[in-house]
Amino acid sequence: MNGTAEVTVLRLGHRPGRDERMTTHVGLTARALGADRVCFPDNAGQSKATVSDITNRFGGPFDVELTDSPQAMLRNWAGKVVHLTMYGERVQDVEAEIRAAHQDDGEPLLVVVGAEKVPFDVYEQANWNVGVTNQPHSEVAGLAVFLDRLFEGQELEREWEDADRQVIPMATGKRVESIDEE
Amino acid sequence: MNGTAEVTVLRLGHRPGRDERMTTHVGLTARALGADRVCFPDNAGQSKATVSDITNRFGGPFDVELTDSPQAMLRNWAGKVVHLTMYGERVQDVEAEIRAAHQDDGEPLLVVVGAEKVPFDVYEQANWNVGVTNQPHSEVAGLAVFLDRLFEGQELEREWEDADRQVIPMATGKRVESIDEE
Repeated sequence: MNGTAEVTVLRLGHRPGRDERMTTHVGLTARALGADRVCFPDNAGQSKATVSDITNRFGGPFDVELTDSPQAMLRNWAGKVVHLTMYGERVQDVEAEIRAAHQDDGEPLLVVVGAEKVPFDVYEQANWNVGVTNQPHSEVAGLAVFLDRLFEGQELEREWEDADRQVIPMATGKRVESIDEE
Repeated sequence: MNGTAEVTVLRLGHRPGRDERMTTHVGLTARALGADRVCFPDNAGQSKATVSDITNRFGGPFDVELTDSPQAMLRNWAGKVVHLTMYGERVQDVEAEIRAAHQDDGEPLLVVVGAEKVPFDVYEQANWNVGVTNQPHSEVAGLAVFLDRLFEGQELEREWEDADRQVIPMATGKRVESIDEE
């Protein structure tokens, strides 16, 4: 997000068909809640297209990429790695430390979100394995709460560039305004 | 959640097959992040079975129900209704008011989460239409952030009853302990 070190979300594992919507929702959640970029496995082209389309219409900057080697990306990341898992340390116990690394030390963060069973070396490569609760629920929910806490709500104030439309908050009803190109 | 007025999550709309995982994730997120109950449309029996199974293994109390008339439930709710929608007021602007109604006035909350297009009368029946961002992303992400803010993180400290297993938070690796019945 504007003014902070890069935050990239890496989706590990994608089963075409079965995971399409979950992977898409991981990408859209990353965008809406302050990440700069999402990387999907290279068989998730359909999810990439959906997230790119939303970015084109509702604004950015936000990058969507495919990678043929998520493991290499993880190994070579020049920054800190957070792996979201129900087996990890409690988010409320480690979030201050992660925030300090990101905001104070300017470390780029790679936030890893698994789909199917995550290989054990991911647990070892992560600087933090973090549980948004130690209960089974949803990788999308875990990512959302993690990002909201990482950015301490500042992501909700983000402004969007190059949007062609904008939703105007309303107590009742729907209002979408077109944004004219200058 | 223990000691606060009831919070029920109502899932509106469910297309069997297509929405199975999203509806399941709405239910699991509701459970993990402090709601007392989730209601699904009556064609979401498979999602109900999954959420019930998780509750049996990982603990409760948490209720999962099907309803043949979500609209009637909405109309007859004895408390306040929050409808999560990207067209609504900004969560950061209305959360204090909602929290006051729930925590100070003891109002039971019905949190409505849509799937396909939501009928306009839902917007009118809601006491608050709330946007967790006014960007398109994920109803699961929106629900997660809303609940975390409603409970101000206290939901992460919740203890579970009648679980037969418990995940122990770990910096690296996985640890699941069986809980013996007394």
